[in-house]
Amino acid sequence: MTLPAIGISLGDPGGIGPEVVLKALAAPSLLPEARFIVFGDRRLWDAERASLGLHLEVQVHKGDTVPSAPGLYFNDIGAMPGDVVRGGASAENGKSSFLAFEKAVELAGRGILDAVVTAPVSKTSWRLAGLSWRGHTEYLDSLYPGAIMTFWSERLKVALLSHHIPLTEALGRVRKGVLLDFFRALHRSLAGVRSGVEELLVAGLNPHAGEDGLLGGEETTEIQPAIEAAAKEGIPVSGPFPPDTVFLKALDRPEKMVVAMSHDQGLVAFKLVAFETGVNATLGMPFIRTSPDHGTAYDIAGKGAADPRSLIAAIRMAVELS
Amino acid sequence: MTLPAIGISLGDPGGIGPEVVLKALAAPSLLPEARFIVFGDRRLWDAERASLGLHLEVQVHKGDTVPSAPGLYFNDIGAMPGDVVRGGASAENGKSSFLAFEKAVELAGRGILDAVVTAPVSKTSWRLAGLSWRGHTEYLDSLYPGAIMTFWSERLKVALLSHHIPLTEALGRVRKGVLLDFFRALHRSLAGVRSGVEELLVAGLNPHAGEDGLLGGEETTEIQPAIEAAAKEGIPVSGPFPPDTVFLKALDRPEKMVVAMSHDQGLVAFKLVAFETGVNATLGMPFIRTSPDHGTAYDIAGKGAADPRSLIAAIRMAVELS
Repeated sequence: MTLPAIGISLGDPGGIGPEVVLKALAAPSLLPEARFIVFGDRRLWDAERASLGLHLEVQVHKGDTVPSAPGLYFNDIGAMPGDVVRGGASAENGKSSFLAFEKAVELAGRGILDAVVTAPVSKTSWRLAGLSWRGHTEYLDSLYPGAIMTFWSERLKVALLSHHIPLTEALGRVRKGVLLDFFRALHRSLAGVRSGVEELLVAGLNPHAGEDGLLGGEETTEIQPAIEAAAKEGIPVSGPFPPDTVFLKALDRPEKMVVAMSHDQGLVAFKLVAFETGVNATLGMPFIRTSPDHGTAYDIAGKGAADPRSLIAAIRMAVELS
Repeated sequence: MTLPAIGISLGDPGGIGPEVVLKALAAPSLLPEARFIVFGDRRLWDAERASLGLHLEVQVHKGDTVPSAPGLYFNDIGAMPGDVVRGGASAENGKSSFLAFEKAVELAGRGILDAVVTAPVSKTSWRLAGLSWRGHTEYLDSLYPGAIMTFWSERLKVALLSHHIPLTEALGRVRKGVLLDFFRALHRSLAGVRSGVEELLVAGLNPHAGEDGLLGGEETTEIQPAIEAAAKEGIPVSGPFPPDTVFLKALDRPEKMVVAMSHDQGLVAFKLVAFETGVNATLGMPFIRTSPDHGTAYDIAGKGAADPRSLIAAIRMAVELS
């Protein structure tokens, strides 16, 4: 069996991305065996490695194949200017982080990589670089409209019915057909990987899950029918449960994942339980994408103080789900 | 100085209310000194006390005054049938719990009590009794339309802009004028009691608090202007903050309270942090009302196994806020 090929994009050169990638890959005992291909600027990588005092051998990766031997490869996307702006956004930073991400996603889309792990980019840098996508998620959405945002931690797992849209629009997605499609796609994605998830707990939308229609009708007219239709197809899904207790039902139950009706219904819960230790995994695409649950952290960039644990968790999950 | 007069309603006779009230009052070392007046059926009280093997002296309370001496009083609202249905709802249970609550609220509204602590009632029992209010909150809403639901625990404090209405209606309340009135009323309520709250952190409505309008406009058009207007009046209020991190900003910071834009934005967070150990306090009325963060728990009623800690916390908070 060939080991998974995992692309890792370095993220914004001005943030902590390059540092946490280096620290993670320098700790092989914390990582499963795989073929790791880092995408970024080679000069930046070498400078960061020297500054951290790490000795890490990388083989050059080029072209459309990944060698079958496990190990560490580097795909040099070039593109960096002479001086990196550390601790802040810039057009060059945006261009560099986008090109690395774009290249990894392209190879994954063509089946050459099994998964892509993305170190954090800066939305400001992307905007300064003239990019029309606000971030990783919007770029993946544009390529794969059925992409599903999920969040994973030891204590809680959450999938979001919708993500970066206004709440009023998110409410408009709470429709039987949309929900049924979502349950199917999520179930198919989870069944195709070693997720450990055996049951989807669906949150309601309204207080007390609508309390038999007294506090809102979507549970009765949309969510419940979608759950029933999905259950008939053999999808292990139950609910709708009151939003304020459904997360407690899934807490410390690794076989359960909550389906949240909106970005913040899910992330208010997730971030309280697993702030900066969780992993964001994008499903519903031909490959897996994971990322750590933190940003560029410009304030501590270049100081050697960044904690690689969330990125290590993201890499481990990428391998596990592949 | 006269000690506060605290009314305590026994709640649904079939649930754990009478048991936790008895257990709480039988542990005076855990309670501040006050004048406690229990409202309920005396025969039920005596039977429950005997069954629990507790020896608790209560003085009879009648009429429109509360004696100035600290101690334990009982206001017999009668109304119980011969047999109490334990572990389930009934019209008689609903009638009894409503009459006890109604009487305590009436005396508090007239200034005779400083606060009311409510043991849990059953919505089903209230409906069976033909009552038109779904529960305590709706009854208080009908008397005091400006009533504010707040939730208190050691780790987190939350106030809800709206509570038992459909989410689409709740979104309609996110308007500058409504918000400004809410900030004023909440600030006034908190300033009038020993709350310890020094700053209100206001949650946004949309993902990432709208991200400068890209993900929703309410932050820019409604919430921010209301915050600015309130701040000009000297109200210590800030935000709007992204919903998925605002609760982390207030966690373990006892001087901060989060203002949530909807029932579940606030309660998803609160229940994860303080499930069944928190206290629900209704502000914005001429008196304070507190209640434990659990229900009738019919499944364990009558077994002597109910935990009185949340009710004790509710009683302590009622005294502190009075």
